[in-house]
Amino acid sequence: MTPMEEFFKKDYFGKGTGVILMESSPGRARMKMEIDERHLNSHGTVHGGAIFTLADSAFAVASNSHGIPAAAINAQISYVKSARSGTLYAYAEEISLNPKIATYMVDVKDSTGERIATFHGMVYRKTPKKV
Amino acid sequence: MTPMEEFFKKDYFGKGTGVILMESSPGRARMKMEIDERHLNSHGTVHGGAIFTLADSAFAVASNSHGIPAAAINAQISYVKSARSGTLYAYAEEISLNPKIATYMVDVKDSTGERIATFHGMVYRKTPKKV
Amino acid sequence: MTPMEEFFKKDYFGKGTGVILMESSPGRARMKMEIDERHLNSHGTVHGGAIFTLADSAFAVASNSHGIPAAAINAQISYVKSARSGTLYAYAEEISLNPKIATYMVDVKDSTGERIATFHGMVYRKTPKKV
Amino acid sequence: MTPMEEFFKKDYFGKGTGVILMESSPGRARMKMEIDERHLNSHGTVHGGAIFTLADSAFAVASNSHGIPAAAINAQISYVKSARSGTLYAYAEEISLNPKIATYMVDVKDSTGERIATFHGMVYRKTPKKV
Repeated sequence: MTPMEEFFKKDYFGKGTGVILMESSPGRARMKMEIDERHLNSHGTVHGGAIFTLADSAFAVASNSHGIPAAAINAQISYVKSARSGTLYAYAEEISLNPKIATYMVDVKDSTGERIATFHGMVYRKTPKKV
Repeated sequence: MTPMEEFFKKDYFGKGTGVILMESSPGRARMKMEIDERHLNSHGTVHGGAIFTLADSAFAVASNSHGIPAAAINAQISYVKSARSGTLYAYAEEISLNPKIATYMVDVKDSTGERIATFHGMVYRKTPKKV
Repeated sequence: MTPMEEFFKKDYFGKGTGVILMESSPGRARMKMEIDERHLNSHGTVHGGAIFTLADSAFAVASNSHGIPAAAINAQISYVKSARSGTLYAYAEEISLNPKIATYMVDVKDSTGERIATFHGMVYRKTPKKV
Repeated sequence: MTPMEEFFKKDYFGKGTGVILMESSPGRARMKMEIDERHLNSHGTVHGGAIFTLADSAFAVASNSHGIPAAAINAQISYVKSARSGTLYAYAEEISLNPKIATYMVDVKDSTGERIATFHGMVYRKTPKKV
C-alpha cells in the first residue's frame, strides 16, 4: 500500500460515500465515484454534496501528498452540467505551493469526458516549527 | 408531512449521510448532523465533504422552498474551525431572490454556538416559461 | 489621524478609484464610493472591479486593524443587483480570527439599503515569529 | 476596430485603471496591466482590486464575445504570489457555455510567467426571449 493509499484508507467519509482512489503523485490525485441511487438529491440528479465530496477527497490526497499535514480552509465549486448515473472522475492538480498555503484545481468529469464541475481549494500547511 | 419534508425525503445523499431537516420556511432552513466515525477524514476531524453536505442540504431546502425548482450553480465554503464530534447545525438564509438567480448564506455551528464554517451558494431557478 | 486612516492613506489604488474610509474598529470597517462615469463598464453599470475594489478595501482595513499585517489569499463576490449611480457603501465584519487565518464578510449596499453584492474574504496573518 | 475592441472601449473602469485589451476570440481574451504606483495597496504590493479588475475585464470580454450580453453573477479569486511592479497578464478561457449560464477561468501571470492569481467567474446570459 502506498503512503497515500494508507492516508485515504482512514478517510471514512470519502470511502463511505463511495470515493475510490485511482492514483496519486506529489501534488496530484485521481479519484472516482460510481453513481447509484444513494448519491441522488431531491431532483433525481447527483447531489452537490456527493460531487463536492468526490472533488474534496481528490483535493485532500493531492494536498497531503508532500508529507506535511494540510487542512482545507476554503473551497469553491461550480456545477456546469448535472449527472444522473455512470462513473464520475475527479482529477486534482496543484496550482501553487507556498510554505503555509497551497491551492488546487479539481476537474470533475463523467465517463464521456464531459465536465460536470470545477472545484478550487486552498489548504493551510502545518509545517513543523523550527527548533 | 410539510412540502419541504416531502422534498427532503427524496434527498438520498443528504439523508444517507445523516442530515436531518429540523425546520424550514420560505427562503430558510435549519438542518443538523450528529457526528460519528463515518463523518471523519484522514486527520480524524469532520470531513469537508460532510460539512459541505450538511450546508448544501440546508441550501437546497431553502432555495426550493418557493415552489420553483432551483438548481445549484455555485457554492463556496470557508472552514474556520475543525470539529470532531457532537452535533453540527446549519442555518440557511436567502440573501437575494431574482426571477432566475437567488443567493443564500449558510452558517454551520457546533452545539456550543461556535462557527465551524460559512457557506455561500447560488441557484438557477427554473421558472416555467410564459405560455 | 487614526492608525487605520494612516494605513488607508497609503492605499493608492483604493483611494485612486474613489474609495473613502468612513469608520473602522477592530475587525470592522465601513467605506463608501461615490459612483460616477469612470466606475462604469461596457454595459453602463458599475464595473465588477469597482464594486470589488470597494469591498476589498473595507476587507483590507478590517483585517489589518489588529496591528498584524494581513495579506488577502482568497476572495469571493456575488453580484445580486446592478447599480448605475449614487453612493455605494461597504461594511466589513470579521467572522473568524485564528492566529494565522482570518475571514471577513462584506456587504455592499446602495444608499437605499438595497444589497448590491456580498463579498467573502480570507487573509493570512503574518504574525511575528516567537524569539 | 473589432467588435470586442468596440465593446472594451466603453469599459471606463477597466480602461481608467490601466487595463489594455491585447486580443480576443470567441470565449477567450488576453489583457494586460502595466503596474505603477497607482496600483499599489497599503503594503506596497499590487492591490487585490487591481488584480481583480484586470482578471474581471478579461472575463467580461471573453463572456460577451458571443454577441449576447453577459452579466457577472459570481467571481472568486485566489492570490498565490504578490506582485510589486512590471506587467501583469490575464488570460480568460471559457470552461462551460450553457444557454443562460457560462463559466470562465482566468489566469493572471507576471512577465516571467509566474502565476499571481487564479480567477473563476460565472455570468448570466441575457438571451433574447423567443417571440
